[in-house]
Amino acid sequence: MALELGAFVQFFEFLRDVGIFLQAHSHVRKLLSNAPVESVVRVTGIVSSRPPGQENPKMPTGDIEVKVETAEILNSCKKLPFEIKDFIKKSEALRMQYRYLDLRSFQLQYNLRLRSQIVMRMREYLCNLHGFVDVETPTLFKRTPGGAKEFLVPSREAGKFYSLPQSPQQFKQLLMVGGVDRYFQVARCYRDEGSRPDRQPEFTQIDIEMSFVDQAGIQGLIEGLLQYSWPQERGAITTPFPSMTYEEALADYGTDKPDTRFGMKIVDISDILRRSDIQFVQNALSYPHGTVKAICIPQGVRYLKNKDLESLKESAKSQFNQCSALGSLRLESADLLEAAGMTLRDPTAFHFLWVVDFPLFLPKEENPAELESAHHPFTAPHPVDTNLLYSDPTKVRSQHYDLVLNGNEIGGGSIRIHNAEQQRFVLEKVLKEDSEVLSHLLEALESGAPPHGGIALGLDRLISLIVGAPSIRDVIAFPKSFRGRDLMGNAPDYVTPEELEPYHIQVSWLDKAELAG
Amino acid sequence: MALELGAFVQFFEFLRDVGIFLQAHSHVRKLLSNAPVESVVRVTGIVSSRPPGQENPKMPTGDIEVKVETAEILNSCKKLPFEIKDFIKKSEALRMQYRYLDLRSFQLQYNLRLRSQIVMRMREYLCNLHGFVDVETPTLFKRTPGGAKEFLVPSREAGKFYSLPQSPQQFKQLLMVGGVDRYFQVARCYRDEGSRPDRQPEFTQIDIEMSFVDQAGIQGLIEGLLQYSWPQERGAITTPFPSMTYEEALADYGTDKPDTRFGMKIVDISDILRRSDIQFVQNALSYPHGTVKAICIPQGVRYLKNKDLESLKESAKSQFNQCSALGSLRLESADLLEAAGMTLRDPTAFHFLWVVDFPLFLPKEENPAELESAHHPFTAPHPVDTNLLYSDPTKVRSQHYDLVLNGNEIGGGSIRIHNAEQQRFVLEKVLKEDSEVLSHLLEALESGAPPHGGIALGLDRLISLIVGAPSIRDVIAFPKSFRGRDLMGNAPDYVTPEELEPYHIQVSWLDKAELAG
Repeated sequence: MALELGAFVQFFEFLRDVGIFLQAHSHVRKLLSNAPVESVVRVTGIVSSRPPGQENPKMPTGDIEVKVETAEILNSCKKLPFEIKDFIKKSEALRMQYRYLDLRSFQLQYNLRLRSQIVMRMREYLCNLHGFVDVETPTLFKRTPGGAKEFLVPSREAGKFYSLPQSPQQFKQLLMVGGVDRYFQVARCYRDEGSRPDRQPEFTQIDIEMSFVDQAGIQGLIEGLLQYSWPQERGAITTPFPSMTYEEALADYGTDKPDTRFGMKIVDISDILRRSDIQFVQNALSYPHGTVKAICIPQGVRYLKNKDLESLKESAKSQFNQCSALGSLRLESADLLEAAGMTLRDPTAFHFLWVVDFPLFLPKEENPAELESAHHPFTAPHPVDTNLLYSDPTKVRSQHYDLVLNGNEIGGGSIRIHNAEQQRFVLEKVLKEDSEVLSHLLEALESGAPPHGGIALGLDRLISLIVGAPSIRDVIAFPKSFRGRDLMGNAPDYVTPEELEPYHIQVSWLDKAELAG
Repeated sequence: MALELGAFVQFFEFLRDVGIFLQAHSHVRKLLSNAPVESVVRVTGIVSSRPPGQENPKMPTGDIEVKVETAEILNSCKKLPFEIKDFIKKSEALRMQYRYLDLRSFQLQYNLRLRSQIVMRMREYLCNLHGFVDVETPTLFKRTPGGAKEFLVPSREAGKFYSLPQSPQQFKQLLMVGGVDRYFQVARCYRDEGSRPDRQPEFTQIDIEMSFVDQAGIQGLIEGLLQYSWPQERGAITTPFPSMTYEEALADYGTDKPDTRFGMKIVDISDILRRSDIQFVQNALSYPHGTVKAICIPQGVRYLKNKDLESLKESAKSQFNQCSALGSLRLESADLLEAAGMTLRDPTAFHFLWVVDFPLFLPKEENPAELESAHHPFTAPHPVDTNLLYSDPTKVRSQHYDLVLNGNEIGGGSIRIHNAEQQRFVLEKVLKEDSEVLSHLLEALESGAPPHGGIALGLDRLISLIVGAPSIRDVIAFPKSFRGRDLMGNAPDYVTPEELEPYHIQVSWLDKAELAG
């Protein structure tokens, strides 16, 4: 093998990635050894095999060497706030400020390139194999009712604002009405939640909608999509994915997104304890629906120390959100067991799970006498429960489905309501909302809307699980900090009053928030 | 051929698209004939060939018929503000208000589906054939200096705003510094220009950047990209595309985006007229650089009437923007000739053209003593002119290139400055701008930035030219009106003062604009 390198493209990469072994005249050698680390050089020369015994199997180019003829420094590196080596741990803030340097790390290069490949495979599956149409929907829209988490964009009409939607939900349904019967989009979505760990103000979802489809149809499509786009190096995944009802998930795992990589299910031990004479147990069982539940921690005696038990006790006392107390303790116990050396969750295993049969409505937290949609008001009721919609809406199950991977919700979707009267009933009678603001959607349903349904996959979370990244920030090229700031470019930033003028707004410098602070 | 149709997916399309020939029992026939137009029905039955002589070659399914066994109305169409037929002309406003119905038209279905296919082919070319990485860049960023056309997004920090960028320019250059040496993105971009005909506040560009590339490299890549993704039904395109300097374009066509489908070039007739005794001609020629130029309109005597000449005269008196007076008259004459029946521009012809060697700087309109970037401040000077940058910047040509199709600019790009000192000189000394706001980019250039360049193609315009649509609104699923309004969903819209509170802004109801109005 001996080819001449005229193109500098490959050569730069050789040098940067692997510090290629160079045979060169002394003046070239001097120029290159004097160049600061991370400088950009152009080298021309002859590539040949390394002499036997000098190969380096640890380098991608360890089999070759270059007889350098000329060298030139294209850009000298003058400033380097940290070394570009993966094992040197930098602070998160420094990494974010110099993101363009952090991007040179092996791990971020791998994550971004794999992300691009997976999305490309998804597109091939949807577009080329299944006839989906990639349609771009607007991101300048208007507030949906109750859309408190939507960013606002002032317009040039005084008092009028666009909003950046949390998902293309309305548009994808309108596309079904418009005869684009298989829609998908890698959609940028926006959510203003203030400061939340590992959430981003803008994020990406694989957004899909189909006409004439049922729940099984969407599930089969997604299973095929993930199987087709799954990276080879992570092993194959088997389909169909297992399925579990919302009720089963809560009963067995204490959460609607169970991590099924390990057991330790919640068991009802009421019957066993009913004959005991422990007073607080008897008290608990004397209530209507009173039960006693437990999880069994395998080899807990061997692995868990007193301080672990204390920490579990403390957690049990504190607040729980989506998990019941036992659901949280199950996950926390798993962490403690693994910290103590037990192998519980195989880091190379990917356990997908469908969770189905969610309730259609939930009591509002602030006023449990009123109902709100468990997911969104366009979700269709379960066909078996349709009649209950008009008599006892709290009992209606929905045609919503969540996709869970290793205990993380990575997608959710539903069959939608396609009947205008039913949609109006849900909005006005059940949710007590003003349906006027959705009049365009209701009119659309009256104009020959086909039955339809869809799903959205959270791309950032999915990729971060595939590559084993601790945060979704590691699979996004330029993420925001957890306060929503771009630490590299310093966004958001102040603007002058003159710049606000065309938008008819002014800053309220002394408002409640500031007075409180 | 006789297969049973259980699936309703295909069937719906049969009925909707072609009004399939039905053999059915009378009760089914009655149900279907009573269903309002555009209703959604499910039909099951046996598909078989039509009897000889009854085939209809004008229908996609004209060879078959269906023996219907059962039929069911899935959704009855109750409201139809206009008929879904292409030949019935609707007002633009009505089409926009009921966009979900307009989308059912043959033309919009064709446009959106072809757009999806073309973009998919572009992705295959870039990702699979040329190793580009699809990277998503943020749309919540901060104002660039002079970014008066950027939408603002109020943040929860009082007085601080994000902005929606007009292009991912800074991010794509930072990706080059970060070692993602071949980047592309189908990027959503934003531009707030108020009311402009056939402009959209959000639009899409095919955004590309490469390291270690020169002008010819980018041009070759784009020629290959367009050739690969070009729809077969529009005929093949030949590469390489012809190229013309900015100076030649202005001299011969009076514009920097010449429509080269027809001649009628501008010719300098000064020498011919120098010996004439026409006084105003002699006056014009007596000025320094005084010239007399003309276009020759072929068969103008035959095709142009007096009123046409009057209209041309009127135009010549009015304002011209990017075109010189003769450049505009050339285009207007072409319109008049075609209106009079001459075939001048073949509607099936696609004439691509590179325009190169633009000036790097232009005098500011409001103050010609000061300079501004002809394109943007990151454009590299032409290598031949680099020294002039420091002595006479007005004479420096740039490494910017525009791609023109049939007289429309469909793309533009450049080789960028990769040297921090040169970039700082351009910003501070030539453009007199505060370079502090771009300090992250300048620091990045000091950290081992490779030479790089790129391009962006305007996807909406390109697709509209390919399908022959009169407006880019016809290749966008849910476009805004020319005032930036969504007439279907009624965006932008009013929000309550409470909704503005988290963003520390209030509406200025009585500001200058309103007082003036």
